[in-house]
Amino acid sequence: MSDTQPVEGRAQNRQTAESMAARQREISISEFFSKNRHLLGFDNPQKALLTAVKEAVDNSLDACEDAGILPTIKIGIQQLAEDRFRIAVEDNGPGIVKAQIPKIFGKLLYGSKFHTLKQARGQQGIGISAAGMYGLLTTGKSLSVTSRTGEEKPAHYYEIQIDTRKNAPQIITDKVVEWDPPHGTRVEIELIGTYKKGRHSVDDYVRQTAIANPHCEIFYTAPDTEEVLHLQRGSDQLPPEPREIKPHPYGVELGVLIRMMKESSARQLSAALQRDFSRVSGRVAVEICKAAGLNPNANPHTIVVHEAERLFRAINGVKIMSPATNCLSPIGEEQILAGLRKEIAADYFTAITRAPAVYRGNPFQVEVGLAYGGRLQSDDLIDLLRFANRVPLQYQQSGCAITKAALGIDWRSYGLSQSKGALPVGPVVLFVHIASVWVPFTSESKEAVAAYPEIMRELRLALQECGRKLATHIRAHRRAVDEEKKKSYIEKYIPHIGIALREILGLSEKAEKQVVVTLKDVLERSRSREHIED
Amino acid sequence: MSDTQPVEGRAQNRQTAESMAARQREISISEFFSKNRHLLGFDNPQKALLTAVKEAVDNSLDACEDAGILPTIKIGIQQLAEDRFRIAVEDNGPGIVKAQIPKIFGKLLYGSKFHTLKQARGQQGIGISAAGMYGLLTTGKSLSVTSRTGEEKPAHYYEIQIDTRKNAPQIITDKVVEWDPPHGTRVEIELIGTYKKGRHSVDDYVRQTAIANPHCEIFYTAPDTEEVLHLQRGSDQLPPEPREIKPHPYGVELGVLIRMMKESSARQLSAALQRDFSRVSGRVAVEICKAAGLNPNANPHTIVVHEAERLFRAINGVKIMSPATNCLSPIGEEQILAGLRKEIAADYFTAITRAPAVYRGNPFQVEVGLAYGGRLQSDDLIDLLRFANRVPLQYQQSGCAITKAALGIDWRSYGLSQSKGALPVGPVVLFVHIASVWVPFTSESKEAVAAYPEIMRELRLALQECGRKLATHIRAHRRAVDEEKKKSYIEKYIPHIGIALREILGLSEKAEKQVVVTLKDVLERSRSREHIED
Repeated sequence: MSDTQPVEGRAQNRQTAESMAARQREISISEFFSKNRHLLGFDNPQKALLTAVKEAVDNSLDACEDAGILPTIKIGIQQLAEDRFRIAVEDNGPGIVKAQIPKIFGKLLYGSKFHTLKQARGQQGIGISAAGMYGLLTTGKSLSVTSRTGEEKPAHYYEIQIDTRKNAPQIITDKVVEWDPPHGTRVEIELIGTYKKGRHSVDDYVRQTAIANPHCEIFYTAPDTEEVLHLQRGSDQLPPEPREIKPHPYGVELGVLIRMMKESSARQLSAALQRDFSRVSGRVAVEICKAAGLNPNANPHTIVVHEAERLFRAINGVKIMSPATNCLSPIGEEQILAGLRKEIAADYFTAITRAPAVYRGNPFQVEVGLAYGGRLQSDDLIDLLRFANRVPLQYQQSGCAITKAALGIDWRSYGLSQSKGALPVGPVVLFVHIASVWVPFTSESKEAVAAYPEIMRELRLALQECGRKLATHIRAHRRAVDEEKKKSYIEKYIPHIGIALREILGLSEKAEKQVVVTLKDVLERSRSREHIED
Repeated sequence: MSDTQPVEGRAQNRQTAESMAARQREISISEFFSKNRHLLGFDNPQKALLTAVKEAVDNSLDACEDAGILPTIKIGIQQLAEDRFRIAVEDNGPGIVKAQIPKIFGKLLYGSKFHTLKQARGQQGIGISAAGMYGLLTTGKSLSVTSRTGEEKPAHYYEIQIDTRKNAPQIITDKVVEWDPPHGTRVEIELIGTYKKGRHSVDDYVRQTAIANPHCEIFYTAPDTEEVLHLQRGSDQLPPEPREIKPHPYGVELGVLIRMMKESSARQLSAALQRDFSRVSGRVAVEICKAAGLNPNANPHTIVVHEAERLFRAINGVKIMSPATNCLSPIGEEQILAGLRKEIAADYFTAITRAPAVYRGNPFQVEVGLAYGGRLQSDDLIDLLRFANRVPLQYQQSGCAITKAALGIDWRSYGLSQSKGALPVGPVVLFVHIASVWVPFTSESKEAVAAYPEIMRELRLALQECGRKLATHIRAHRRAVDEEKKKSYIEKYIPHIGIALREILGLSEKAEKQVVVTLKDVLERSRSREHIED
């Protein structure tokens, strides 16, 4: 305790610049997030359990896909006491080299994905260490990791605690163990949590993960059962591998441009532009320099602010090819349909994948799937399933761009009923996926997507396209119902007309039958003509 | 570029554990937030301008109040180009000592408030450096600071840029300058922004700040005017000075308890409990140790997990006084009324300040003010003004505990109309303030409060209390209106009855007048009897 720190209960002196200075100090990122754990999705025990499972599964799926391995994930939740659980997530991925294990699991802001422009579930290097930190905070127990990188390699077992003051791992146990799998990683965390069924549950997360990742096999053991739920693969195809790209010049900001030029490994301005950016050819680089009134052979390291400003304006004035989009790996219409059909008992399905677009220089892509009718409830609000880079988003629905876009659509014109400012009512499951090299989440807990205008636009267009398909289906369905109704009217009333005619005109029974047949025929024909002319 | 980094356009090799390891590295907190700037409130140019002003003003007000100085704040926004602004915020605070300036303005997660349990506007040590970082990113320009700590001291002028890779300040200019004010700080930032009027504007922020801080004098120059808006003090009283407290044992988590004991400066368990926690007397400390089956004289540094678990359970089983609440500085009913009356043209005002309560060990306090009628619009949704530690919250209304609590109230029982799931409709401005030693914001941009159950409960109770007061007023007001209406009916129709009676009964004009007076009198009396029996 420094001598400027006031003693509780005693009258405090007002602060001066000097006494304030004595109290100023650095805050470690781990301290920051341990006090702000709700930012990471650990704000209540139910969410904490879900978040911990989710972070571990995200890492497992990313690792498997990066290594070209069809993922098989085992998720187990064991209840130790009323509010205490031990979660275990095991994958058949490539494993983690020994030296990296402590940092990956015991240090916040550490990883391989942050500086990479390529679609991945993880992006910040926070998630799994934060889950371990939450476990440590609430139970005092270490996170444990077992990992093996190949059949000829030993399996390593670690017990790790994060030192929050230093944001650094503290290794409690480090040993070689016997472990059967030829390669893979197993993470275990003990934590205070709550297990519940329903909307925000781990069960629901597992089901939604299976829908959006049909190539993944999952074994799931919930805490209240002995049974292992086996979710089989719907597809043996790995998703197309996303490629890493460099930043696109249109998305760069002035300050970033200055830094990139100063740090470039190139010695000439035009070479720096070519090397550090995507889609900049030699010709385009020279064109940019010319438009900026700068020498293409100038040293990029000595660029000053007003020159950079000219360069910045020139970039945005020169025509540059759109960014490559093979950094993205959308689910695809077929796979979305397969996922929905597998899990949802509806009778109409449709899906669309939009072409890639760009926000702030980051390529992204929107996909929408829709299931209608069947056993879905007609008088409830529609069920909106949100996904980002194949990960289900289960919280903060109202703050999410996906919800905002869905609320902004006039669903009544597509045949659903809708109150102002609410989701429509109808037997619909709406599946919305955003894939991007950098999903702009509204918080580190990655629960909702920020409403960038470009993203809102793509969402709107995709939802409208699906809406139109739905409207066509509903109209056709209504017409079929209407026709059925008309047909039944004809069949119901014509015999009575026949009887009346017989009585009035004194027809024979045979003549009556003929009249009835003729009448039916005429009416059927007029009905179908009506239909054709519709 | 490392050799494992794939080259764009060329087929990528699938990753192995080794190739992944080569790509893993540390991420600086500045890099993290520069890529995630929307987390800090810099997601679009309009919000960026507001956030930058807000962060600077928060710091100024905190500094003045800590030093016991009645704040006078000058806010200027100068438009340099269509989307480029230079903001300047100057205070009459205690100033900042020279050595601290670069870190306070050029390093994220640096400050005096994070480790302190005491109500303040700032708490994370991020805001103002982030504003400077945003300015640098978008314009390449340094943040500039002028500060002076006393009349005999020189004024220091700095130009600072944040080095995002290192999260460290880079000093561009450092000199002594002539500056008139005897003490205070002036910050200037050039940034890309948008200036708009209305709900989310700087203008609105200034107005709301004046309402919640009647002791503060503000001079504000908007970019579209030459005029200086002078918001005068409504009060010459500084708010009561909040005192710093230590954590309360009931709010501590097991992992934190372990760390506190290991790091305690005390050598005996019971002394550690007394020294490091609030409200633990010698007697209580011994009682806790006894309940845990631990020796009060044991060394706290050698505590192991299962002993700590026993200690943790014992703490929650022993009766300990509630935390001291002089760490809070509520606005108070009188000042809320003064603020509302000063700025809002209504004809009914009410306010209530709840007693302090505790969430996760953190004292907090809820206050609600309400203005009704007058020139406020009757057919719009009510205007909800949210505040945390006297700072207006202008974004993320739907994600905020305050909004959720307001939506959860049945306002129809208090005389307003309300659709399901919406705010009520009526001529109402609703002012809600949460004061806490640690406001649990839903994001670093501090725009919305997380819905902890204890906070929701206090909000609900405060809103209901204000609602009941409003209901009483509305009922009384309606009765007056109804009476007025009845009275006007009487005055309107009785003369006609008089005329009719004269014609039917052949009365004289005088008799007619008398009949009219008598009738009026009888009806007035029956009306007021009705009223009494109501």
